[in-house]
Amino acid sequence: MTKIEELINRVTHRVNINLRELNFDVRPYLDGINLKWQLSKFYAFYGITPHHKLSFKFIASSLAGSYFLGKSKIDHSVLYKSDIRGDELKSKGTTYKCEDYEIPVYDDEEIQITNSILIKTLVHNFSHDPENLEFFNIKNTFSAHFANIHGSSVEGCFLGPFSTVDLTTLHDCVVGEFSYIQVEELAHKKVPPGTIRVRYKDKFDFNYQFPEKVLKKYIDFDSQKLPKGIFIDFVENRKTDFENVFEVMNRENPVFIPDNTALDKYAVVRGQTRIGRNVLVAQRAYLEDASLGKGANVQENCYIINSHLEGYNITAHGAKIINARLGENIFVGFNSFVRGKVDKPLIIGDGSIVMPHTIIDIEEPLVIPAGFIVWGYIKNAEDLKLNGISLESFSKIKTDFKLGGMEFKGNGDIFINAFKERIDHILHANGAFFDIADESTGGHAQKNQNISFNTIQPYPGGDLKGIYPTIEIKP
Amino acid sequence: MTKIEELINRVTHRVNINLRELNFDVRPYLDGINLKWQLSKFYAFYGITPHHKLSFKFIASSLAGSYFLGKSKIDHSVLYKSDIRGDELKSKGTTYKCEDYEIPVYDDEEIQITNSILIKTLVHNFSHDPENLEFFNIKNTFSAHFANIHGSSVEGCFLGPFSTVDLTTLHDCVVGEFSYIQVEELAHKKVPPGTIRVRYKDKFDFNYQFPEKVLKKYIDFDSQKLPKGIFIDFVENRKTDFENVFEVMNRENPVFIPDNTALDKYAVVRGQTRIGRNVLVAQRAYLEDASLGKGANVQENCYIINSHLEGYNITAHGAKIINARLGENIFVGFNSFVRGKVDKPLIIGDGSIVMPHTIIDIEEPLVIPAGFIVWGYIKNAEDLKLNGISLESFSKIKTDFKLGGMEFKGNGDIFINAFKERIDHILHANGAFFDIADESTGGHAQKNQNISFNTIQPYPGGDLKGIYPTIEIKP
Repeated sequence: MTKIEELINRVTHRVNINLRELNFDVRPYLDGINLKWQLSKFYAFYGITPHHKLSFKFIASSLAGSYFLGKSKIDHSVLYKSDIRGDELKSKGTTYKCEDYEIPVYDDEEIQITNSILIKTLVHNFSHDPENLEFFNIKNTFSAHFANIHGSSVEGCFLGPFSTVDLTTLHDCVVGEFSYIQVEELAHKKVPPGTIRVRYKDKFDFNYQFPEKVLKKYIDFDSQKLPKGIFIDFVENRKTDFENVFEVMNRENPVFIPDNTALDKYAVVRGQTRIGRNVLVAQRAYLEDASLGKGANVQENCYIINSHLEGYNITAHGAKIINARLGENIFVGFNSFVRGKVDKPLIIGDGSIVMPHTIIDIEEPLVIPAGFIVWGYIKNAEDLKLNGISLESFSKIKTDFKLGGMEFKGNGDIFINAFKERIDHILHANGAFFDIADESTGGHAQKNQNISFNTIQPYPGGDLKGIYPTIEIKP
Repeated sequence: MTKIEELINRVTHRVNINLRELNFDVRPYLDGINLKWQLSKFYAFYGITPHHKLSFKFIASSLAGSYFLGKSKIDHSVLYKSDIRGDELKSKGTTYKCEDYEIPVYDDEEIQITNSILIKTLVHNFSHDPENLEFFNIKNTFSAHFANIHGSSVEGCFLGPFSTVDLTTLHDCVVGEFSYIQVEELAHKKVPPGTIRVRYKDKFDFNYQFPEKVLKKYIDFDSQKLPKGIFIDFVENRKTDFENVFEVMNRENPVFIPDNTALDKYAVVRGQTRIGRNVLVAQRAYLEDASLGKGANVQENCYIINSHLEGYNITAHGAKIINARLGENIFVGFNSFVRGKVDKPLIIGDGSIVMPHTIIDIEEPLVIPAGFIVWGYIKNAEDLKLNGISLESFSKIKTDFKLGGMEFKGNGDIFINAFKERIDHILHANGAFFDIADESTGGHAQKNQNISFNTIQPYPGGDLKGIYPTIEIKP
């Protein structure tokens, strides 16, 4: 048995131990991926800048494509195509607000991924776990294709393809494909596929369940436990465009990049694309005939094709916008799939919120009015009535509310405000409102303009084939 | 003052302290190079394979282009375009023969370059210093363009452009441009430019001095202390070809590469080039319309242009062969410049030795017979008479011998045999005689076929601009 096989076995076994109560075996999901081959095929890389605290440590160490920007530390991990950004880690000496507490942060926060397995996951900002502010921990976790982890510990879990665990501490859970979980804390639970759940204490609880038939069309598993469906076809069809980007050491900007805008070296840009000021286009984003207004924020793994975004638009990790015209200040949530037709573009009005994991895939021309919030599955105006209302109406909800497949409990105003605050935070953190006269208004769009990318490859042969050497990088 | 300026100052000061007795100031030589700019311009890289013991450690750390293959450890160093191969380092448990002693090697040998400055130098194989077998040490050394260091400690030295320190322990010396020194040990000496000296105890002492006028034509300093002359023009004219090679992540082999032959990813290959079996083409080698027979060994920084090499030819570091036809088993030594004319090719017969740092730059057709040894400066048949004799005749020298500008003391047979043994060792070490039926016959040509190259870049901005992060890499 080669070292890489040993390592895969060892960590897989640990994930399965974590999931024993749920009687879930990750092994078949792993087998289909042919990890041994994938790990030796790619080169990995990490970015360094003067703005990100750096302390990488890869120990065993098996990685593949990557992008470790802030502090990191990885133990016996198998990683593969991981992003792990760490550019919002907390600094020593700051304080963290949690309800009525002001908790001092004793050390620079570090991402640790000990004894772990992570397959295609993006990990993003910082630990929201008040007991664990200095460490953004992920342990023995298997995350499938385009799963997202944001902002908390995720220990001993299986995350299905296109699932998102957001602002949630998760212990020993199985999250089904395309599920979105933002529920503070969850332990020893199996989350069914297509569950959209946003819960905060007794303040609000948003719950939507995708119909099984719809879901299976977009994302499902084949008999080999490999993901299939429209989402997978969509990303697979654009794979070679990324391969071309990864083939060159330095690339000329393919389009004009204004001052204070950052276009990542590993983003695809095609066709007649136009990028405005204070824009951040993250790595592995895909732009084709896209027009991005001022302050747009285009996150990792998202696709914007034949679409116009007016300004201050957030396209969150993994979201896809195709044949659409979006007004200003629109949030398109994680892994949402928003597709008009070439001759029947989808139109979304200013200030609207497309909930994470929404599928809008229209059959006829559709306009989503300004100031709307939408969720679930929408293919026409009829669906829109059952999967969206105005933000104003939503804010008026005082207790229970049901619409179509969605059930809401709690205070609509608190829910909408929490959303708006987060949108505002994202735009600020990304430097969308950067004003040259005030340096403090800068964010990722300004700080990520000039990243040194270092590439690493695994051993090309022998017993260690597919394993990367142990690497430690310090300032 | 930025960190990189601080570092350059600090180490330069140390080199000057080493050279105080010689009253030599390296600073003006450094100023012309504009090191601060050069260090931030390049990306560095290192190779990993299953065949090379790996333990890199770059501490301060400023590097530029590089290629650290075997164990290394670098302290406060400024490096720049360094090669540092370490693929012949001694292993723990082996013994090293030195005269009548068999010295056990207690640890895997490591290259250490502590508190150092190295600008464009290649460091190559292993420590020949019997008191220091586990460490190939280089300390506070400034080596200019295309200087070579092989096989021993070089402490507190200035090496001029195109100079070579070979199998020699050097303390606090200044080695003039294009000088070749192979003298076991040397301390506190200034070696004049164009000195070719090969001395071994009381056995032999070969001594040739290039005429100043000739030397200045090929390599000299301008008023800014930057190197100029035919050698510099030659390499500068081919710089962009290398830049193209460094721009791609993976390259298809530009010509057919037989089994058991290694073409380095960072070698330039142009025109109608043909490469035979068991050949090693090292990084930064340059081939244009070159035909390489079986077992050829093309070392770092050498150029073979419009030439045919029959087989088992060694083209040592920095050697240049242009418009020539070489028979079998010919050694062209370090930094030699061997140039025929397009319509008047230079012909060299089987088994000949071109001494390191020889300039053959012909004005008329010239044939160097088989079994000849040549040195010095040769532009026609007349010069050849004064700068070469048959190996047979040389072997018959019993004590003193003079010819043209060359003076030899000692035993010619021992001298020629030492040379032949070394040539044989180089061919074996490079796998020129590899036989698929016997794995032990393999060498660099077989082991270097599949190298993973990892690239590293310095901080792109801020106070640390031009500095690379501290990097530690272990198996």
